[in-house]
Amino acid sequence: MIQKYEPRRGDHLLVIGFGPVAVRLVDELLPAVASGDLRLTVVGAESRVGYNRVLVGEYGVGRLDEDGLALLDLEDWTSRGVEVLTGTEVTWLDRSARQAHVVDTVTRTPATLDYDLVVLAVGARPNLPVLRGINPDPGAAALLPPGVTVLRTPEDAADLREAVARRGRVVVLGGGVLGVEVALAAHEEGCPVTVVHHRPWLLTRSTDAIAGAMLNGVLARHGVEVVTDAVAKEVLRDATGAFRALRLADGRTVEGDVLVLSCGVTPRTRIAEGAGLRVARGIVVDHELEADPEARVFALGDCAEVLCDDPSCPVCPARVGRGPMGLVGPGWRQAEWLARRLLAALRNDPGPLEPLVEEDVDSIRLKARRLDFGAGGLLAGEPWQPQPAGQGVALWVDGARGKLVKSVVRDGVVVGWISLGMPRAGAELALLHASGRPAPVDLSVLLRLDGADGGEEELTPASTVCRCAGVAAGTISEAISGGCSTVEEVRTTTRAGSGCGGCRGSVEKLLRELVPQAG
Amino acid sequence: MIQKYEPRRGDHLLVIGFGPVAVRLVDELLPAVASGDLRLTVVGAESRVGYNRVLVGEYGVGRLDEDGLALLDLEDWTSRGVEVLTGTEVTWLDRSARQAHVVDTVTRTPATLDYDLVVLAVGARPNLPVLRGINPDPGAAALLPPGVTVLRTPEDAADLREAVARRGRVVVLGGGVLGVEVALAAHEEGCPVTVVHHRPWLLTRSTDAIAGAMLNGVLARHGVEVVTDAVAKEVLRDATGAFRALRLADGRTVEGDVLVLSCGVTPRTRIAEGAGLRVARGIVVDHELEADPEARVFALGDCAEVLCDDPSCPVCPARVGRGPMGLVGPGWRQAEWLARRLLAALRNDPGPLEPLVEEDVDSIRLKARRLDFGAGGLLAGEPWQPQPAGQGVALWVDGARGKLVKSVVRDGVVVGWISLGMPRAGAELALLHASGRPAPVDLSVLLRLDGADGGEEELTPASTVCRCAGVAAGTISEAISGGCSTVEEVRTTTRAGSGCGGCRGSVEKLLRELVPQAG
Repeated sequence: MIQKYEPRRGDHLLVIGFGPVAVRLVDELLPAVASGDLRLTVVGAESRVGYNRVLVGEYGVGRLDEDGLALLDLEDWTSRGVEVLTGTEVTWLDRSARQAHVVDTVTRTPATLDYDLVVLAVGARPNLPVLRGINPDPGAAALLPPGVTVLRTPEDAADLREAVARRGRVVVLGGGVLGVEVALAAHEEGCPVTVVHHRPWLLTRSTDAIAGAMLNGVLARHGVEVVTDAVAKEVLRDATGAFRALRLADGRTVEGDVLVLSCGVTPRTRIAEGAGLRVARGIVVDHELEADPEARVFALGDCAEVLCDDPSCPVCPARVGRGPMGLVGPGWRQAEWLARRLLAALRNDPGPLEPLVEEDVDSIRLKARRLDFGAGGLLAGEPWQPQPAGQGVALWVDGARGKLVKSVVRDGVVVGWISLGMPRAGAELALLHASGRPAPVDLSVLLRLDGADGGEEELTPASTVCRCAGVAAGTISEAISGGCSTVEEVRTTTRAGSGCGGCRGSVEKLLRELVPQAG
Repeated sequence: MIQKYEPRRGDHLLVIGFGPVAVRLVDELLPAVASGDLRLTVVGAESRVGYNRVLVGEYGVGRLDEDGLALLDLEDWTSRGVEVLTGTEVTWLDRSARQAHVVDTVTRTPATLDYDLVVLAVGARPNLPVLRGINPDPGAAALLPPGVTVLRTPEDAADLREAVARRGRVVVLGGGVLGVEVALAAHEEGCPVTVVHHRPWLLTRSTDAIAGAMLNGVLARHGVEVVTDAVAKEVLRDATGAFRALRLADGRTVEGDVLVLSCGVTPRTRIAEGAGLRVARGIVVDHELEADPEARVFALGDCAEVLCDDPSCPVCPARVGRGPMGLVGPGWRQAEWLARRLLAALRNDPGPLEPLVEEDVDSIRLKARRLDFGAGGLLAGEPWQPQPAGQGVALWVDGARGKLVKSVVRDGVVVGWISLGMPRAGAELALLHASGRPAPVDLSVLLRLDGADGGEEELTPASTVCRCAGVAAGTISEAISGGCSTVEEVRTTTRAGSGCGGCRGSVEKLLRELVPQAG
């Protein structure tokens, strides 16, 4: 039987990948690095240090500059002893020798890095659709022609940023959450925008036919052109080789100045596969994030798939794995948990560690300034269809005003919901869903929250304000009492607002209420 | 050109038909008969005098006895000079001779009746479905075997009444308004009930697919078996020849002790056709109820179809005719208007008569103790489907609680609605629909009316309490101030409650509030 490795003082931890989840892990381990209990090297393939990838879309439409993406203070890290290798690609993880073979992405100089423990935080890569006119050969010099882009890195976003700056025509291929968000943002910034989607309705994975039809209609009313049931066939290019139009299977062409490919992501599993680790949709880890039997290799974030195959596991009853969720919050919680585990081991702390509970975050909330949409959980059927015993569905649709609220209640508890144009009802449903608190018997009372007399949103100390970082209103209030007086100070102190930034309004509200007024 | 006939004093008016509409017409003309200004003969084919046909279903389930159906005081009528011929069938209306040829329904003795004016108020006859095992030959001695019945007369209702008295199994063929009402009433009285309907959902003409699916489900939850999409083929009979089961085209049989055929009605047009009058769905009349160019023959109630074919008619813009509505109220309003017209002519009153506005009563409200359903107007499409400019649809469905509210608003005004299990929202929508008052922008506020805190229904003096007789709350309040202290006294004085009886609760409420308490 393979012995499980117990980390010791002085061990070298190699963090492969330099996205937001890797940054959070390193942040949490900084004290142990500074005290010399842990050696830590973080290896990233990009030339820049870890940044807030969640905001690349905002950057792409010109709402942020590069500083707005920053996640870490490199000088602080290196002064505490963290080794940072950017522009460095891992080619092979040799688990028997406990060495990572790496190569400089520019010079192609190879090297090896010894390790005692390794964490794979390599994230996911954008899917490239099969389209004539772009080159899907990963060995090619440039995968994508000018004006055709994914949205993973600031470099990716450059074409979009340039097009938005001159109010160019933006074509988005793929009407998932990120595609719709970037379409709405570019449109809000003044660009003519077309979303081309292969299914009958946008956000196909997160919503149902009725809410999808409403959503299509609301986007169209906002002025975003929505082309559904569209099979994209070819990228047409102008004389300079740059994007000119997207040709569909039915012969139509959608013209534009830039094409954003938003066709989902796939976990990066190459290193794990090369190391003989189990891979399903992602790198398979158990509920303690272990990817190997020795517990020397861990994986977390978008590259990992929690798939516990022990039928007697008390933490993972009937667990099924799933792909990346495109949310930074769950990965951050994994990073925090793994840091606690490693720190406990380094301290020889024998106490039980609170188990990492995988979050049931099959819920989304669209980030857009003029459109509110959220959904989560089970969207089973329509209210007029037969339901399993104990389950009921309620639906409100106001076609003229583009509003919808759907709730699925099982045994008195919300197990699924959709809200469109009803932010407060949506927030309440999300809360009921997450908390498992009893749902109101008459679900129509939720509609009052968004009525003219619905009143302001009430934040209790326990209300989660920042969903990415998991920060409660009470924590933010304490930070404000402790001296924070700006959104930035609150973010630095509490991490609220460090993710997608969607909670900025709530943080501003707390600041208005709590900061003593001058004079 | 044919001269329009002007009624004169002493004219003989023949009223053919003796249903509630004929009774109301005679009631209104009683003063002229008593004063000798008019001779009036009413001819009915049934052996009994006019009764409240609307309540035959209630009678059939044993909630009323025959006295409860009474509509008139025959002694009073005859003492004032009304001639009443029951058991008398009109075989031919000879318009050139101005004679009705009649025959005694028992002795078959023929006779003729001279007239100056004639009113056809012969109503409609129940449709008989084509089923093996029943004899659709009108010449046969008995059209229907024992245990198979329509619900037009108290005699029809005898089999049902007997079956309900011993809690027998009731099968209703036809899930229209009357079929569903009798099914619910029989079930409320303790009978096992099955409704067999040929379309996918009940009340097919009055509702849409979604509300229909909800309605099917709500009836099933109440314990009424609903068999939809069912093609009835054959009536199976026991050794005595009585009803045993209904066989469907797919081979299934629905067993029961009594079969109620509720398959709609057809206007009785035989006399009009024989008299060479124009007949479409019903006896065609213009908006002044004239069936002939001379204005000697009138028709009203369920046998008449208002179909003004004068394109320049100021009263009937774009009028299209329609079949009988199964409501007594519009026929009563026609009777009252025609009485006013005749009385004005007899008085040589040259003043203009307020035109008869055909009521837009394509709305229904189901009479049932434990189920509230109403619908009216245009039910166009679903809220998530594209609508014509200016039109919006809103929908609330709570599947678990069996509640639904749909509203169709065009240019700010309700043009259609459905309510299920939401009586106050339904009443408000019916009122908004009828009045053309502006609808609330946020239609979800209507849902609050049926909430726990919706408060009691507010009756203003102008609120219509009795929809059949068109009696406002103010009229009832005055009657109570004037001394009425029971529902029966209010009915006699104001006619409120003289139709379907659905307003009894509201009348009781007014009595509770307004009758001075003893002591």
